[in-house]
Amino acid sequence: MLINKKHFRTIWENEDYGDICTIDQTLLPHSFEIINITNVKQAAKIILDMNVRGAPLIGATGAYGMCLAVKENSSDKFIDESYHILLETRPTAINLKWALDKIRDELIKTPKIERIKKSYEIARKICDNDVKICKNIGIHGFELIKNLYQKNNRPINILTHCNAGWLATIDWGTATAPMYMAQKNNIPIHVWVDETRPRNQGANITSYELKNQNINHTVIVDNAGGHLMQKGLVDLCIVGTDRTTYTGDVTNKIGTYLKALAAKDNDVPFYVALPSTTIDWEMRDGLKEVNIEERNFNEVNYVQGLDDQNIIKSIRITPQDVKTSNYAFDTTPRRLITGLITENGVLDPNEESIKKAFNR
Amino acid sequence: MLINKKHFRTIWENEDYGDICTIDQTLLPHSFEIINITNVKQAAKIILDMNVRGAPLIGATGAYGMCLAVKENSSDKFIDESYHILLETRPTAINLKWALDKIRDELIKTPKIERIKKSYEIARKICDNDVKICKNIGIHGFELIKNLYQKNNRPINILTHCNAGWLATIDWGTATAPMYMAQKNNIPIHVWVDETRPRNQGANITSYELKNQNINHTVIVDNAGGHLMQKGLVDLCIVGTDRTTYTGDVTNKIGTYLKALAAKDNDVPFYVALPSTTIDWEMRDGLKEVNIEERNFNEVNYVQGLDDQNIIKSIRITPQDVKTSNYAFDTTPRRLITGLITENGVLDPNEESIKKAFNR
Repeated sequence: MLINKKHFRTIWENEDYGDICTIDQTLLPHSFEIINITNVKQAAKIILDMNVRGAPLIGATGAYGMCLAVKENSSDKFIDESYHILLETRPTAINLKWALDKIRDELIKTPKIERIKKSYEIARKICDNDVKICKNIGIHGFELIKNLYQKNNRPINILTHCNAGWLATIDWGTATAPMYMAQKNNIPIHVWVDETRPRNQGANITSYELKNQNINHTVIVDNAGGHLMQKGLVDLCIVGTDRTTYTGDVTNKIGTYLKALAAKDNDVPFYVALPSTTIDWEMRDGLKEVNIEERNFNEVNYVQGLDDQNIIKSIRITPQDVKTSNYAFDTTPRRLITGLITENGVLDPNEESIKKAFNR
Repeated sequence: MLINKKHFRTIWENEDYGDICTIDQTLLPHSFEIINITNVKQAAKIILDMNVRGAPLIGATGAYGMCLAVKENSSDKFIDESYHILLETRPTAINLKWALDKIRDELIKTPKIERIKKSYEIARKICDNDVKICKNIGIHGFELIKNLYQKNNRPINILTHCNAGWLATIDWGTATAPMYMAQKNNIPIHVWVDETRPRNQGANITSYELKNQNINHTVIVDNAGGHLMQKGLVDLCIVGTDRTTYTGDVTNKIGTYLKALAAKDNDVPFYVALPSTTIDWEMRDGLKEVNIEERNFNEVNYVQGLDDQNIIKSIRITPQDVKTSNYAFDTTPRRLITGLITENGVLDPNEESIKKAFNR
């Protein structure tokens, strides 16, 4: 997608088989800076410090970290050490482990002399495949927007929560892919962007994406979505997901459940966009089985922004010593979801439909 | 209630018939400063600059502003001029107009020599009456908490949104009065305090109140309440209201509706605490008839807090030039409300019950 009218992916090779470049997402939207990654330790630090974020991008950064490792030393021992250095940055990130496993297993089987070439080929394939999946989510989700447009013949209002955008993936994004596809097909849309406290990924990242892509949008506080739906100002919701049960329960950024309730109460269709990699084939009941992570309470106490000198600052918004709590996700039960937009089509949120679409 | 272990009201006389003191609420929770008001123009500025907030406190500040006016010049002409100076600070604040009308009408009928004494008497009565109403809300709401405690025999978890606390009134508050009454009666409680974007009255004011009163509480982002209710961590919700229809629809701070939906979905009782002065006896349908105010969009773009030098700063959290929207309130339909806690008892949210309680 576009930044300052130039096409970017979130991760790329400086030159073929060269250093790896990525965008420093901790500075967005206030500053656009490219990080040049030259070795595996730096790749690990980039993941650890959350300069990159979003499961697919973290996976791709891990894969490219392995490429840089192999360039430094193509021995089995160094490959194994590098694997662990990268894995330990985010031990629970399922895409990271998957990408690292894939690249390590293939490299061990490859003659030393071909390992650099092989590692880059795998990393590229991981990226290209993610782009393809997101694009297909866009194609399927676009049909929903198109249908609403043909019915209403006016710009379609879409509400989204958090950032399930291209900056969390390699390109296109998940929840945003249908929006970008609508734009490419000249269907007019307007997006309500939930601020998404406490980390403000909506106000910071999603609005940055949409602005650079020249998509009409408005940032709102997380409290506002219900009122907008009551007033008929939302035609559909599209959000992402961190984990989906094979029965259709969706665990996503905290606050998603509240928007799904409001959508149900006002007959607004509520869609979840997801690559099939986020489906947990072991998990039946999202509410009972998903363990919701509690993050650092200072994410609630402090807010980052730009001061009057245009310097990025962090300020404390709560009284000193106050107790805060910071659950990162909530689970939206399938009964509140209209459909799941996947790379294999729009599915009903139930076991039968999901298993059929992925031949399980 | 208490600040730094000392009892305060939100407005008081420096000495009998003297200057008027109030707390500068724009600096809370980071700094506690008392403002000394010596004349009517200063009183008007205090209201205009939102150093005082909350309908009852604005009304009382207006009344005491008239006292200071009369001390300066007790002529009919000056009383009338002062009335208009004060009224124009917040022309839509219904309590302000009510208090100003009351004091002007009485003063005009009073001999000039007795006007100073009379004006203070009326202002004191307005304050004392507000305290009495809030205390009665506390007594009735306390019964609800006590019943839950007797059933569960563990601290009762209460969720509240925004600040309907004593700092918005003269003392006790509305939504907080039952909490303070529970404390006085040794019923253990824990309060979940919604941050309440965009102006953060929960994180700033409610948490400040509860901390100074030594009530166990936790600040959460507005997104979190639904998840807490799903997990059984909320026993009841108590919120305030800006306007209540005589049929029981409640217009309150934006985001209240989302919490009411979550409460309904999880069988959590949802109560609204209100003085009968917020009942609109002309209005039947809150969703259709209440015109929701849109406030300055920079309330969404900027957040105020304490920087690392302990200086109060405002920082920009959205990209430059992004469009934001800032609806201040939403309407919760009566079907989502368990009961209305008023000075005349806990009422069912319907026309019959409300009219009966207030002999209409």
